Amino acid sequence: MVDIKNSLRVELGDRGYPILIGTGLLDAPRLFDDAIASRQVMVVSNETVAPLYMRRLLRALTAFDVRQAILPDGEVYKTLDMLNRIYTALLENRFDRGCTLLALGGGVIGDMTGFAAATYQRGVGFVQVPTTLLSQVDSSVGGKTGVNHPLGKNMIGAFYQPSGVLIDVETLSTLPDRELSAGLAEIIKYGLIDDASFFDWLDANMEALRRRDTEALVHAIQRSCADKARVVAADEREAGQRALLNLGHTFGHAIETGMGYGTWLHGEAVGAGMCLAAAMSERMGLLDRASLERIVALIARAGLPTAPPPEIDAKRFRSLMAVDKKVRDGKPRLVLLRGIGDAFLTSMFDDDALASVLGLPSA
Amino acid sequence: MVDIKNSLRVELGDRGYPILIGTGLLDAPRLFDDAIASRQVMVVSNETVAPLYMRRLLRALTAFDVRQAILPDGEVYKTLDMLNRIYTALLENRFDRGCTLLALGGGVIGDMTGFAAATYQRGVGFVQVPTTLLSQVDSSVGGKTGVNHPLGKNMIGAFYQPSGVLIDVETLSTLPDRELSAGLAEIIKYGLIDDASFFDWLDANMEALRRRDTEALVHAIQRSCADKARVVAADEREAGQRALLNLGHTFGHAIETGMGYGTWLHGEAVGAGMCLAAAMSERMGLLDRASLERIVALIARAGLPTAPPPEIDAKRFRSLMAVDKKVRDGKPRLVLLRGIGDAFLTSMFDDDALASVLGLPSA
Repeated sequence: MVDIKNSLRVELGDRGYPILIGTGLLDAPRLFDDAIASRQVMVVSNETVAPLYMRRLLRALTAFDVRQAILPDGEVYKTLDMLNRIYTALLENRFDRGCTLLALGGGVIGDMTGFAAATYQRGVGFVQVPTTLLSQVDSSVGGKTGVNHPLGKNMIGAFYQPSGVLIDVETLSTLPDRELSAGLAEIIKYGLIDDASFFDWLDANMEALRRRDTEALVHAIQRSCADKARVVAADEREAGQRALLNLGHTFGHAIETGMGYGTWLHGEAVGAGMCLAAAMSERMGLLDRASLERIVALIARAGLPTAPPPEIDAKRFRSLMAVDKKVRDGKPRLVLLRGIGDAFLTSMFDDDALASVLGLPSA
Repeated sequence: MVDIKNSLRVELGDRGYPILIGTGLLDAPRLFDDAIASRQVMVVSNETVAPLYMRRLLRALTAFDVRQAILPDGEVYKTLDMLNRIYTALLENRFDRGCTLLALGGGVIGDMTGFAAATYQRGVGFVQVPTTLLSQVDSSVGGKTGVNHPLGKNMIGAFYQPSGVLIDVETLSTLPDRELSAGLAEIIKYGLIDDASFFDWLDANMEALRRRDTEALVHAIQRSCADKARVVAADEREAGQRALLNLGHTFGHAIETGMGYGTWLHGEAVGAGMCLAAAMSERMGLLDRASLERIVALIARAGLPTAPPPEIDAKRFRSLMAVDKKVRDGKPRLVLLRGIGDAFLTSMFDDDALASVLGLPSA
């Protein structure tokens, strides 16, 4: 049963596009007919997701000339080499510049497929079918595509908008609990940035989300995408407002780098990172104690860590933060909180507050 | 002596940029101060051009934090691997997303550097200092950047505009004669497409151009860039009008592919290709005999071949044309001539006329 329960439109002038959210979407040829303007379609997926959903997707794509590129699963494969595999598949199948790339998978597949679409013959069609909660609420909006370089994450890429995003929440039934929680971290982030009433809703519905209640998931995804779309539309290329989406990320990247990528999931690192940002905000007198406690409690209820791993000692943590790419010209730029739903970007980096949050003696 | 003899502005809304043409530009720090908005500058060049001009350029860039990436010279190195070398140099030198890439070299360096600029941290600054006649009149306008794939030329890339182009015609003094002629092929092309009076000027000044007269070169480069800018501004993404820039290229690509890339220079193949396009136009009754003869004579006077190489027999030539990427869905699209300065795009592919031009018996 195809059931489009909710939808929104990301407004970006002539590059705006629809996001459809519901159940049974993978079985709806009509939706793909609407979203895809070409005859040739390359479905890019990975070895974990393809066995689960490729057959259903192919049945919905019978009107098209479809080929597949199946990549190995994992952030470690988000490389130029794997990107080149997509180009090779396109060229071996004589795909022309009118073709469409369809990403079936999580954030890694979405980022790589989007970058391949941005750069194959200088830009072809791109449709996303995100299958993880994180990619549904994060990669669906914003147009960030790219691959990693051995010397840095997401260092190679482009801004490129899809022509449509189809989110079938039934794909979340096969998602491991840890990855569900990782997605919830980004969802909580949208509440914290500028949507206090969404934070309240999450506070009341966290258990429904964790047991994967369809209506709750649809609402959380729609609200997250709408929140992100509002921020992105105001500031497509990340000069100002968009930087708020990095809440928890400067701390989180330090955790990911310190532990080696893949040890903690990105969302787990962001969960702990948001707790650190909130704690630092409280220590600086910006955020009241009760809000801090509410934030930490909700992040814990989402199944996420609320503190950095003991393996990274405080001194190392601080030095890891200094190399984050959001820290320009050696001057740290952090997103902090004046309240729930009231994040702001600051370069007033209070090293004493950071030291105190990390348990270091102040300088 | 810095002498800006001519300039134009490529109008592309908020992505418009200036092209300065003159002598001594490489020695003018003020011009680079105007063109470059960042502190960090990565000069990308190759092993042929760097020994000739890098020292002068570095003296003009003393106000910046400059690093160099020197690549091997040649179309065979226009690869993802070489692109990755640029990324690595940027990351090893901790270049941030506010940096600028400066291309010092011909079309290969310009295309790769532009694509690196388009994709490093999702887009950084880009300035061009083209040092070959071909790149000065072709790559300076249009925003095409990219690399080759083993299965196809220019299959990976992006549209990305520079913030400025500095053309120092003195760099042409070190250009081999063959490469000068290759540049003249593209210059003649602009006259043929839609600028008959420029074709007349070329007819009167070909010998001055071949002896590298400064004033003649400046005029030819300025007029070519202006002609191309007019076509591109009307049609940035190559749907219609812009395809006229492919005059001679469908035939030319067949020559390049058939001979193996690098055997004939691109401009040489385009020279012979334009003769074939003109001959086919004449055979189809579109172009008068006198114009055909004038076109072939000017191309010969530019030092270019006027016929395909004998190594490619006519049957092979025709099959090579069928795989050109401008041939969509198996339907050839050719640029033909109704007169000098009157090119048009057509899918009325007259196979008999092609056979006749190639010396085959008609089907």
